Parts: sequence; structure tokens; C-alpha cells
Amino acid sequence: MLKARREIEIEWGHCDPAGIVFNPRFFEWFDASTSRLFAVAGLPKHEMVRLYGIVGIPLVATQARFLKPSKFGDLVVVESTVQAFKRASFDVQHRLFNGGELAVEGFETRVWTGRDPQDPSRLRSQTIPPEVIARFGLAPA
Amino acid sequence: MLKARREIEIEWGHCDPAGIVFNPRFFEWFDASTSRLFAVAGLPKHEMVRLYGIVGIPLVATQARFLKPSKFGDLVVVESTVQAFKRASFDVQHRLFNGGELAVEGFETRVWTGRDPQDPSRLRSQTIPPEVIARFGLAPA
Amino acid sequence: MLKARREIEIEWGHCDPAGIVFNPRFFEWFDASTSRLFAVAGLPKHEMVRLYGIVGIPLVATQARFLKPSKFGDLVVVESTVQAFKRASFDVQHRLFNGGELAVEGFETRVWTGRDPQDPSRLRSQTIPPEVIARFGLAPA
Amino acid sequence: MLKARREIEIEWGHCDPAGIVFNPRFFEWFDASTSRLFAVAGLPKHEMVRLYGIVGIPLVATQARFLKPSKFGDLVVVESTVQAFKRASFDVQHRLFNGGELAVEGFETRVWTGRDPQDPSRLRSQTIPPEVIARFGLAPA
Repeated sequence: MLKARREIEIEWGHCDPAGIVFNPRFFEWFDASTSRLFAVAGLPKHEMVRLYGIVGIPLVATQARFLKPSKFGDLVVVESTVQAFKRASFDVQHRLFNGGELAVEGFETRVWTGRDPQDPSRLRSQTIPPEVIARFGLAPA
Repeated sequence: MLKARREIEIEWGHCDPAGIVFNPRFFEWFDASTSRLFAVAGLPKHEMVRLYGIVGIPLVATQARFLKPSKFGDLVVVESTVQAFKRASFDVQHRLFNGGELAVEGFETRVWTGRDPQDPSRLRSQTIPPEVIARFGLAPA
Repeated sequence: MLKARREIEIEWGHCDPAGIVFNPRFFEWFDASTSRLFAVAGLPKHEMVRLYGIVGIPLVATQARFLKPSKFGDLVVVESTVQAFKRASFDVQHRLFNGGELAVEGFETRVWTGRDPQDPSRLRSQTIPPEVIARFGLAPA
Repeated sequence: MLKARREIEIEWGHCDPAGIVFNPRFFEWFDASTSRLFAVAGLPKHEMVRLYGIVGIPLVATQARFLKPSKFGDLVVVESTVQAFKRASFDVQHRLFNGGELAVEGFETRVWTGRDPQDPSRLRSQTIPPEVIARFGLAPA
């Protein structure tokens, strides 16, 4: 199974007055980790968007558990995998480790999204191309 | 039941290359909406932190569903309520409306958090003072 | 002279471990204040971009002085004006007041920017339409 | 002369609807690059803050020129040096290169800042310890 791994150094500006990471940063990092996962699969997102004429892979659902705070100066690791592909959507799991311990666990459901041919100002889900799914060693649902 | 209501104008810098709000912004707004909710209850967070000697009310779990994209120039409304207080934690529901339609629904579980008296570098959950809960017209669990 | 005025409540998530606003936030607010200025002139940026077929009005230079920290819970006001229009660029001044005192002063030079007709992947400055400048009660340089 | 060097991959979430980096991100990266510079000098900021009992090194002035846009998928490099130390402040230069070309140039003036012993809620500049300056191979002004 394909896995993306990113190291992140917790910066001053990532932290709030309690001295710990302000939670929206984790979602920013999960977003970048999903991009990294597609890059590992041979599809850097900026090329994938152009190649398939999509506008992106926006989130439709997410959840996260925060088990352990991360502080300014910590070095953390995010590991990400696609758990399942459906027709037009897919599920990603992110696990952020701090000092070897699981600190945050996140799940994302994202949709392969293009423009509506009838009305290009509207976004619309599209079937994920089978060759995209094949790159992850997974079968379409 | 106490409710906080905030209007947010979607700015250029809130949006990504697809022209829609980059998802971590919603969690930033939910965080500010929870603060607003305590302000509505008569406890502005910066005073509450000082008054009760806590370091904050960090997230331990969150989830969100994104039903409709929000675009640059849209005016959205976030409505927030506390759904339940437990001993040391509480649940908040946020609903973001765009053009009158529910666009994002989020849930947060947050913990009333101080410093460990044994080791002030460590954070530790604390019992939520009953008078805090009383301000929301809710009973402790 | 046209002036935009925005009130901003300093949120927990705007602040760093020192408990004061993390400086990139000011540039975010200046960006939104420039948009507000065009809205006041009758040209909301999302409509202006579409109307004139530009990609935006990116910064080419900025400077700021930080005179007084702003803290979580403060209510600040940003006042913005266009100081001068040149052929393809314009200068904006932002003044952020906290408790009536000037806390941050910022200057931006921005360029009216479209796509290069020869190579649409490249951005290119364009002459600012005189009717845009006229809306600010200023004359082109 | 000490120099810090950081590589940054431009992510989807760093970019605006024009597909280029939203300018406040550069100031976020400059902030982290200044921290890196102190780390290179043997003073990781989170340890330095504790060691010297300061609250931080906040900005008092900054300026930047944006010469070339950076796009989603670009890999950029930030090089940072301290240009001069004064009694309580110092100047940092940051140069961000994209594809080998200078894309952004930034300057920061920062102040060595503690709490006012009379009133700990107020921040106050302090003389920079000579041994901090010595680590950069520079002499105090």
C-alpha cells in the first residue's frame, strides 16, 4: 500500500497562546500530505489537475482526534494512506506522530471534482479514472 | 439555549486555486465561534483563561461535513451552540450557512485544560466549574 | 478620498506563544482591506476580476512598521486608502489602530495583472482602466 | 557569516485563486527562517526563549519586494542572514529563490523582548546578550 511520509518542524507561528499547535494547522498539513500521497503515486497534484481537467479534490468530510499536544520546537511525522476508492470519492487516513507516539489521527473523504459542462461556475463530482486508482494498487469499489 | 452567530465575508486569501475556501479556514472560524459563544455567555475567552487559571480549551476531537462550497465574495453565517457539558469536556456544534443553505456542519469536543501542578510544562484536564456550565443554562452531566 | 474601514476582533488563533498577533496576519488583513477599498469604490474584487478579465492585483512591494502589539481580545480598526495610481500599479496605505493608537502602519504597491495573451500560463501587468481610477476620485499619473 | 537555508514546497493551500502564493505566507516563512537562523547559531528559538527569559523577538519593521510569482508545485529556497545587531534589535535579510532566480526579497527588524518587571502584562525591549551576537560572528553596534 502506498504511503506518504512528511516531517514537519513545529514553528513559533504554528502555535497559539497556550504554546501548542493551533488546530487548523493540522488540517493544512493533512491537505499537503494528501498531495504528497498523489505525488508518491506519480501524480503531483498540480500536474494531475491539468492532466485530468479537474479543479481539485475538495474535502466532503473529515474527522480528527487529538491525543497529545505538539509544541513549538517539536519535530513531527505525518504518515498518510488512501484507505478506499469509491466511484467519485476516496478516503485518506493521516497519522501524526510526535516523539514516536500517535499525537493526531485524521480521516478525510475527498471528491474528484470538475466543472459542470452545463454551467462552468458550478463544481461537480466525476468518476475517478481507473488508472489513477491502479497507481495506488487498489481496485475501484 | 445560548447561541453565537458570526458573519464572515469570504476573502480572496481564504480561497485556494479552485476559488473555494481552503478547508482549514473553517476550523479557524469554528475556533473563533467557540470563543464567541463563551463571550455571549459572559466569559470572553481572554478573561476566562485568566479568571480560572486555565491555559485554554483545546480540541480533543472534531468532525465536519462540507455540503456546499463557499466562494470568494460570499457572505456566510456561523451559528454555534454547546450541545453538552461533561465533567472536564464539552461538545460544540457549528453550522455554517451560505445563501441560507447549510454549507458546513462541524462538531468539536474540547477540554477544560490547565497546567499539571506537579509539572507545569504538562497540560492536564480539569473539572469545568459549575458556574461556567450554569451560564449556558445547562446542567453538568 | 475614498477610505475603507474594517473592525477586527483579535482571536486566539491570530496570536502566537507570546500572546500577540503573529505578524503574517496583518498582511492577511491588509489584503482583505484592499479588497474592501475596491468594494467601497463599487468594484467588489470578485466582480472586478471577472469584469476586467484580470487574475488579480498581486503585491510587488510592501512595508510595515509595528508600533504596538495587539493582543488576544483586542478590537482593532484598519483604515485604508489608495495613495496614488500609476499606469499599471497603485499604492495603498493601511493604518491599524488599537485602543485609538496607531499600532501598525503598512504600505502596499500592487499591480493590475492579467494573463499574457501569448502564453496564458504567464502573468503580465496591464494598464489600469481610467474608469477604475476615476472611482477613487484620483487622476491617472 | 551565518546563513540559514530552508526548502519549501509550494502547496495547494499556500496559493490563492490566481494560483500563486498568497503574500502573507512569505512572512510566515521569513519568521520560520529567522528561527532557523538562530538554530544554526546554536540557539533553537524555543530554548533561547526559555534560556534568556524573553517572550520572543517580535517584528518592529519589515519590507519585501515580490519579483516573480511562485506557483503551486514550485520548490523554493529561502536564504537568511543577520545583517546587523544593534543594542536591542537586529536586521535580517531573507532571499527566496525560485528556479534559481530571486523571487522575493525581505527585510525584518526584530527586537529582543521581555516582560516589563514593573508590569508583566507589558512587553519591553532588552539589551541583546553579547554571547548571542558573538554566535553570529558579528560585533554589537
